[in-house]
Amino acid sequence: MLGTASQTPTRSRHHNGYFVRWDTEGLLFDPGEGTQRQLLMAGVSPWAITRILLTHLHGDHCLGLPGVVQRMSLERVAHQVDLVFPRSGLPFVDRLLHASVFDDCTDLVRRPVAGPGTVVDPPPFTIVARRLEHRPETFGYRVEEPAGRTILRRRLDELGLEGPAIGELQRGTAVRVGTRMVSLDEVSVERPGQVLAFVMDTALCDAAFELAAGADLLVCEATFADADAALAAEFNHMTASQAGRLAAESGARRLVVTHFSQRYPDPEVLASEARLLHPDVVVARELLRVPVPPRRAGGRDRAVGAVQR
Amino acid sequence: MLGTASQTPTRSRHHNGYFVRWDTEGLLFDPGEGTQRQLLMAGVSPWAITRILLTHLHGDHCLGLPGVVQRMSLERVAHQVDLVFPRSGLPFVDRLLHASVFDDCTDLVRRPVAGPGTVVDPPPFTIVARRLEHRPETFGYRVEEPAGRTILRRRLDELGLEGPAIGELQRGTAVRVGTRMVSLDEVSVERPGQVLAFVMDTALCDAAFELAAGADLLVCEATFADADAALAAEFNHMTASQAGRLAAESGARRLVVTHFSQRYPDPEVLASEARLLHPDVVVARELLRVPVPPRRAGGRDRAVGAVQR
Repeated sequence: MLGTASQTPTRSRHHNGYFVRWDTEGLLFDPGEGTQRQLLMAGVSPWAITRILLTHLHGDHCLGLPGVVQRMSLERVAHQVDLVFPRSGLPFVDRLLHASVFDDCTDLVRRPVAGPGTVVDPPPFTIVARRLEHRPETFGYRVEEPAGRTILRRRLDELGLEGPAIGELQRGTAVRVGTRMVSLDEVSVERPGQVLAFVMDTALCDAAFELAAGADLLVCEATFADADAALAAEFNHMTASQAGRLAAESGARRLVVTHFSQRYPDPEVLASEARLLHPDVVVARELLRVPVPPRRAGGRDRAVGAVQR
Repeated sequence: MLGTASQTPTRSRHHNGYFVRWDTEGLLFDPGEGTQRQLLMAGVSPWAITRILLTHLHGDHCLGLPGVVQRMSLERVAHQVDLVFPRSGLPFVDRLLHASVFDDCTDLVRRPVAGPGTVVDPPPFTIVARRLEHRPETFGYRVEEPAGRTILRRRLDELGLEGPAIGELQRGTAVRVGTRMVSLDEVSVERPGQVLAFVMDTALCDAAFELAAGADLLVCEATFADADAALAAEFNHMTASQAGRLAAESGARRLVVTHFSQRYPDPEVLASEARLLHPDVVVARELLRVPVPPRRAGGRDRAVGAVQR
């Protein structure tokens, strides 16, 4: 959590910025002004960033982009970095990427999102976009790890399998046991893929439920308290209660509330409203690290390895 | 002092940003990323800003501009604000001012600087630009208060002047004393105007001396220590010693060194080098307030009022 403020920063809150470590990837969501330095404060190297995703082109969600990209360039980040954003925001993205004089040596690939659907689909995850209810055009994102298989030690022992045979099974090749062929399915159980949902800025809407469905971690805006629900409705934002309801009804396991209006010096006010509706609510605070809940169990046996397929 | 870092922010230093209160005016120099929040931390309202001056279009000197302008717009700042910048930087300024979606209700007047000379010349000061030695095109600025007169109580008493006559003298009208007319000059001494010089980024050059000549306060980059003088020369930056020499040889009264390379965790290293050459060196630190030295005395008598003319 690099920043947690909506619209106006406060003495304790920076503008938005969320960095997700996901295996070898690093996803940076909505870099608001100051993200470059907040990454430094969090101990995240510019080299750790592999994708940057913007929900929309309001300043508190994107004015940190020039600094991040210029810092990546300065540090000679050599790998490709995807930049995902609403296609209608392209003129702004172009300006942000050429906002000041620098020697651009990044390998930044623009991935404009024209409408709902799959944005990127390489391993180790799929990113799906859904259009949210906010102006200008706003997309929420859902990062889905494909389901895999967890190999069970008990089944291997029963069949007398060991050594190279296990590697072959992991690669999807059936192996001979006595007179028959054994496949991966026979020695493993399904390992559900993990899911991260990123929902901001928006009024509560069907798309938000689609994004959050069964998510392991739901990062969601909670700009207003119940007492200011009229403001939330007027500006297409969510209340903390709505975030709690979204998490509960969509079966999300852990909810992180963030993007707080400056009118709430203590965001616990908002979290307590969300907690009436969901048992696992984390209040985003600057430089807080929030773990994704441990993977849902696929089988009760002790696993020896996991594969994706 | 809102930010003191060159190129790369550090855990203790933000990117540049300098706010000068000058009578009813507020001059914001080189707003780097994060200036919007640093103004908040310093207790400076967006309404206090009357002029924004950019020396050049490197990111550490301008990426905070969108946030500042958007914040001014959000707070409905009603007065005109001048934006002064090198004319060659206009394409970047245009992008910075339209970097993200917002409802622009500022009254921002662009003042592109085409070459050395007077940039703005209204009361209460004149702003002069000089081209510095740095790429891209860079201007340093000198803010000059015009000289005025300080009326002396002793002379008024000698002539028996009081009440409305003093007001007339202040407005430049001669007043009758017995059989002759007395002018402002006869009852006053010159009050030197105060001068602020802002010199960054640059190699030490003649223009820097012109800007700093007799300045009451000289804010100057001191990116490198003597040991790294080769780097300073390579990248057209100054060492702290050069800043000290500039202040000493130009007769500047107080030197503020800033714009420190990340390689110096403790900028006192740099200040100590400058102090070998000038007696009044202030090390810029985040949120430090630096007073302009008291006005040079124009006369020894107790003054009753001051006028500019």
